[in-house]
Parts: sequence; structure tokens; C-alpha cells
Amino acid sequence: MKTGEIIAIGSELLLGGRADTNSLFLTDALGTVGVEVRFKSVIGDDERDIASAVRVAAGRASVIVLTGGLGPTRDDRTRRAVARVTGRPLRRHAEALEGIRRRLAAWGRTPSASQLRQALIPRGADMLPNPVGSAPGFCVLWKGRFLAALPGVPVEAERMFTESVMPRLAKEAHAQDRTERRLFHTFGLTEAEVDDRLKGLVPPAGRVHVGTLASPLGVTVSLTRCGGLTSPRLATLERTAEEIRTRLGSALYGEGLETMEKIVGRLLVAGGLTLAVAESCTGGLIGHRLTEVPGSSSYVDRAVVCYSDRAKTELLGVPEDLIRRHGAVSAEVAAAMATGVRVRSGVSLGLSVTGIAGPGGGSDAKPVGLVYVGLAAGGDPLHSAEQRVPVALETREFHFHGERQAIKLRASQAALNLLRLWLVTGGGRRT
Amino acid sequence: MKTGEIIAIGSELLLGGRADTNSLFLTDALGTVGVEVRFKSVIGDDERDIASAVRVAAGRASVIVLTGGLGPTRDDRTRRAVARVTGRPLRRHAEALEGIRRRLAAWGRTPSASQLRQALIPRGADMLPNPVGSAPGFCVLWKGRFLAALPGVPVEAERMFTESVMPRLAKEAHAQDRTERRLFHTFGLTEAEVDDRLKGLVPPAGRVHVGTLASPLGVTVSLTRCGGLTSPRLATLERTAEEIRTRLGSALYGEGLETMEKIVGRLLVAGGLTLAVAESCTGGLIGHRLTEVPGSSSYVDRAVVCYSDRAKTELLGVPEDLIRRHGAVSAEVAAAMATGVRVRSGVSLGLSVTGIAGPGGGSDAKPVGLVYVGLAAGGDPLHSAEQRVPVALETREFHFHGERQAIKLRASQAALNLLRLWLVTGGGRRT
Repeated sequence: MKTGEIIAIGSELLLGGRADTNSLFLTDALGTVGVEVRFKSVIGDDERDIASAVRVAAGRASVIVLTGGLGPTRDDRTRRAVARVTGRPLRRHAEALEGIRRRLAAWGRTPSASQLRQALIPRGADMLPNPVGSAPGFCVLWKGRFLAALPGVPVEAERMFTESVMPRLAKEAHAQDRTERRLFHTFGLTEAEVDDRLKGLVPPAGRVHVGTLASPLGVTVSLTRCGGLTSPRLATLERTAEEIRTRLGSALYGEGLETMEKIVGRLLVAGGLTLAVAESCTGGLIGHRLTEVPGSSSYVDRAVVCYSDRAKTELLGVPEDLIRRHGAVSAEVAAAMATGVRVRSGVSLGLSVTGIAGPGGGSDAKPVGLVYVGLAAGGDPLHSAEQRVPVALETREFHFHGERQAIKLRASQAALNLLRLWLVTGGGRRT
Repeated sequence: MKTGEIIAIGSELLLGGRADTNSLFLTDALGTVGVEVRFKSVIGDDERDIASAVRVAAGRASVIVLTGGLGPTRDDRTRRAVARVTGRPLRRHAEALEGIRRRLAAWGRTPSASQLRQALIPRGADMLPNPVGSAPGFCVLWKGRFLAALPGVPVEAERMFTESVMPRLAKEAHAQDRTERRLFHTFGLTEAEVDDRLKGLVPPAGRVHVGTLASPLGVTVSLTRCGGLTSPRLATLERTAEEIRTRLGSALYGEGLETMEKIVGRLLVAGGLTLAVAESCTGGLIGHRLTEVPGSSSYVDRAVVCYSDRAKTELLGVPEDLIRRHGAVSAEVAAAMATGVRVRSGVSLGLSVTGIAGPGGGSDAKPVGLVYVGLAAGGDPLHSAEQRVPVALETREFHFHGERQAIKLRASQAALNLLRLWLVTGGGRRT
């Protein structure tokens, strides 16, 4: 398998508080043509620094992709740096010049001297046309390395890489050099518990790699095989994936690009169910996450964020007395919130959260991070009999650690996961 | 000025579709102690690759900061790689061991063998305590280079860098090697409009740099000076900052680390005002953003997310007839939502949003991206006379472009900005 390196160029990526994102797409795309990205670098608009980074890359990678630094301004130094490192002076490329003239004419402008400089590419390099912007890119074979230079604008880099660079790399790629990767998302287990469950799954020194990554949304397991992807090995990888699914059990909520909110949405649609949410410490985050999914208006009826006790009573009918006796952060109030929002909105399912996100508001008895989630299900009075679900009421207690933001995320994930588990274990089956 | 390099370690940063964000904070923080970050790299959990990256960094930087790869799992290779490159074998650090034991004991657990491995640091290195997680870091002086290794979890890396690494670097920093940077956040202007307003502000080739960065939350202007920070130059920089503020006018909503939700919160607290929110297309995002701010429970009473027309009528008292005549996405309904949520919750201010986030639901008359925001203010019947604010009702129409997520963000920002403008222009003055 070939080794790749991605170099993102631009002082704004160093200093502007902006993270490079092109490399995420490029890494995945390169994997599909048998190039394993092992190094990524970010450097400023400094000709010597760019040249130094390209030299370092040439020492450890056979495919080098540069993004950025191809614009018309004085800051854009990629062309000159590559010319310097490869010893190939810049030449005006007739077709590139024509492309720049044509594009600017379409915008009703004539190119300035600096825009025309964009037509310079190293001698012997191939020009890569830019279908969505004015700066062309180029690629060059040099000392057995393949080097491509693309603009930094994500939509331009992506289009040009897909249309002009991928076909060149694909021609040389061996199908069995591809990288296969699977992601498995869990909630409810610590990273150490997940690690424990995966013990002995793959040999430690082999070409198949199992990794874990913890975040407030849970622990994600990655299963990667770099290269050597013959079909028997693909079948083995699939069996390993199956074994991971078995070992993770119901903690596994999704794979690949799936998110908890997409999965819950799909389950609700499949069950013909509607949902209302009553939030306290999550402050609207559950509603926000559910409605990130296109089409969610077909199953999300409403979300009610009750930051005050009065709002809990007025909007959800939680008895004042219940709040007085058990406190707003209690299993009893979580249950009353879930039931209240369900009954008042006339939907199949009510989901609730109440807790202490911190940093203030905690006590010894009820510390920051204490969270209750609740789920109420029941025959929807507005739906026909066959859409009614069994009446159920569940609550769970959690003790989360971390900052306010992390606690909100964990609490939202815990609530959605309670709903998911209820839906997948048949709670959503119509009576 | 010293040269710095940041190396982010973790296969998930190469392959997991997740961008490294620690380096953004680190670059800024290093600038303030006179270290100019010229290179950033990302590498996987491979001991040889880590070692190679550290070797390359030592050749071009005098301050090297590593993040990630310090956890307890088999994947975590940073310690061994640094030991290999520096030729300093790993030693169990007594204080680090004690720290791990203590932290896990507080969580009611005893450390596993793999967790204890986290106490290994290279011989002669200083241990960096981790106040928020279990993995300690370390720093070491080696061949005239300063190398610090921190965990990859952002909150841990940030705390440890600020508390343990910065003081070490600050001791050696020359005041005039520092980088000074100011950020100015605007909403309501395009990047080209902001650019226009800033024309001729600084000479193009000087050491002071003005840049812009657009996102769904608005356009941010950065003003940076690298090095040479004598006090007359600092004064000049401050005058330029003042000029930027004047030119941006009321579009400027915040600076530095301020966010719209923090600023709105501060204004509400200052005015002794309370807020209720009625959301439709933003789905809870406004409530979520407001409640990211610690202490927000003192001014946020509730947020009501009405995804269905019925919810708008039931929870906010929006007349069915109004929705029928003007459509749920209309200035009229935005006004009725803001008034409804304000009156029903008995707070000073009601803020509303209704719009089409897409991708579905648009029409020729009402395309995806059409958003109305509304603000209702009025004497709070539950508050005393001196806390009452003048009655007001405002709506604004917006046409946003972009994907669902971006439209939700823009709409939430537009609503909060309407509230901010009303508060800063004296709307919040008590009658």
C-alpha cells in the first residue's frame, strides 16, 4: 500500500482559528485508491516552510497532496515553493491561461496581472482544471513521487480531486491496496469496558486494527484494514465486524455515519410513532439534535424546555407538590414531565430530562452531573387504535462528570438512547 | 521569536473524520508567550510515525507540543515514541502514579494495569498533572528543544497547557516576541461588505494583518501583529482596533471569546429581564445556545419548540386562523409566537423564529431559507412596575442559503441578534 501525506497551506489555518477540513475528505478518498494517509501537516504562507514540508513529505510518502496557496495574492506561494523543491521552473500554461480568461469573462471581468499569474505551473506538470473557481491546480511526477496541488477552498479541492486526481491514482491502484474501515458507535459503556469486550479480537501486530475513541456521545470503535484486501480477507473482516456487533450488544447504537438522532428518527418513522420532548438541563439540545435530521417534522411534534419550576407546572402539568417533595431533579419529576408532555401534546411518546448541568446548582445530595431521563408511552388519543402503543413509563438515573457542555451532551444522548432501547426491544410494537 | 510545532496524535484524527481542534487553542496560547507556530502535523497511533514526526519537528522548531496518545489503551504510543527519539527510557513516576490512584479512587474504582501504565514518563522529564482526567502529561528539555506531551481530550489539553506549560514558557518569553491578536465578530454583513468597510485600514505589506473569516454565525475580523510589540506599537494596534469597532458599527456583536449567547445573557442580567423563546425551524437550538451559558437559568424561563401547527396554537395561543391565512412561516405568525410565549410565561421578553430549514418544505413563494424572527417586549405582569419594559413588537425577514444545519445556525443567530440590538439600543431600559 502506498503512503500518502496531505499538506494544508495557509496562515489562516495556523492563526485564524480555523481548522483544516479538506484533509478529512482527502484521507477517505485516498484510502479508496489504495493510498494510506499517514501524515498531515499545516503550514503558513511561507515559501521556505512550504518547500521544507514538501521535502519532508517526499522522504516518507509517495503521494503528496497540497491544498491552498494557489490564489492570486502575494500570500499564495505554493507554486513557487513546489518549483523550488522539484527544480522545475514555473511556465505559463496556455490552457490554464485560457481557462482563467474564460471564467472571468463569464463574470464580466478581465483578468488582472495577479490573476494571470495563476496560470503559472512547474515545467512538465499537468494542469488540473478548476470547474468551480479561477485557480487551476497541477500535478507532477517527481523522483517517483506523485504530487498534486489543489486550491484551499473546500468545494474546489473536492471537485478537482474527485474529477482529475482520483482517476490518475485509480489507474495505478491495486484493488487490494484499498483501506476498509468500519465505525461502531456505543453508548453506556466506558472506554475501558469497551476495550475489555474487544480483548483478543484481532492479533496486536497484524494489518487489521481495532481502536476506540471516547467522547460525550459515547465510545466509537473503529475496525480498519489497510491494504491486502483480497476477497477472503474482506470476508474475514466482515466476520470480525459481526463479532464486534455481538460483543457490543445493545450498547451499539449505530455504525458509520449514523447518528443517534438519525437512528431514533428512523425507528419512529418505522413504528409510525410521534414524539414530544420535555427538557430541563439540556436546554433544547434534544430538540435541536432531533431536528437536525431532514424530515423530522413528520415525527417531532414539539419540545418544551422548562428551565423554571413554574414552566414545568404550567406547560407539563407537573404538580407543584411533587416538585416540592422530591425536587425538580428527581426520578418522580422526570416521570411526570414525560407523561405530561405526552398527554398534553397527544403524541405516542414523551421523552424527558431533568438534571444539574453545573457549574452551579449542585449540592451533596444532588451533585452537578446528576441527571434523570424519563420515557412515557401510551395510546395516542388522536391516532387510530392500530397505532396505539403499550402504556409504559421508565426512568433512569445517571451521574455524569465533565463541564456543562459535556454534561448537556451526555444527558441528551442518555435520553435518546433510552428511547432507542425502548423502540428496538419492541416497545414500539403496536398493540 | 521562537518557532513552534504542534503534533496531534491519533488515528481517529487521520481516519475518524474528526478534525484536530486542540491546535487552534495551542497556536493562540503559544503566540502569547512568544512562540510562533509554523508547522502543525497530524499522525496516527504508530510509534515509528510519531518518532519520525518528533525528529522532523526537532529539526525546525524549538518548542514542540504533542497532543494525544497518552491514554491507557494499546493504541496510546506517545510515551514510547518520545522515549525512543530522546533516548530517555520510561520510568514510573511516583507522583503521577499517586495522582492516577487518587483520581480513580474518587470515582470509586481501583486502577487497572493499563491505567497504571499512564504513570510512565521519560527519564528526566517533568510530570504535568491532569486536573480533569486520569492521564498525566510530561515535558522535557532535550537538545535545546522544549517538548511537552498532553492528552488529546480538548478540555484536559487546554487546562494542562494553561496551568503547567504556559508558566514554564512564559518565564523565558521576551515580551516583544509575543503575538497580539484581536477578533471582532459581526452579524448581518457579507464578507465582501466587511472587507469594503476595512479598506485601507493597514498597509498591505506590514507586520499587522487584518483578515476575515465567514461562517453561519457571521463574519469574524482578525487583527494580528506578530512580534515587535513595543508599547508605542501596542498603542497603535489599539487605535486600529478602535477604528475597526467604529467601521463595523452595530454589526459588531462581540470580541475575542465572546459569543452571541453570552452577550445576550449579560445584557439580560444587566437589565433585570427574563426571556422565553418560541422556536420552530431552529428546533431547540436557540434554547440550547442560551443554556450553554452558566447561570442562564436566572433569565431563561422556557423555550417552546413548536414543530406542528397544533403546538403553535396550543402552547403559544397562535390563532389557527392566522396560520391558515398567512402560513406558519410568516411575519404575522412570528409576531404571534413571540407575543404568545411572552404573555403565557409572564416574562419580560418573548423571542420567536419560524422558517423553512429544508431540504424539503420549500415552495416558489416560500423557498427553503426563508426565516422570520420576532421579538415581543412588554410590562411583565409578575414583576414590579420598575422592572417593566416598554411594549414593543418587531419582526424581521431573512433569506438564508446553505444546508439545513447552516440555516438553523443562521436563523438562531438572527433571532439572538434581533434581541441584542433591541437590548443595546435602549429597548431594555426600564420605563
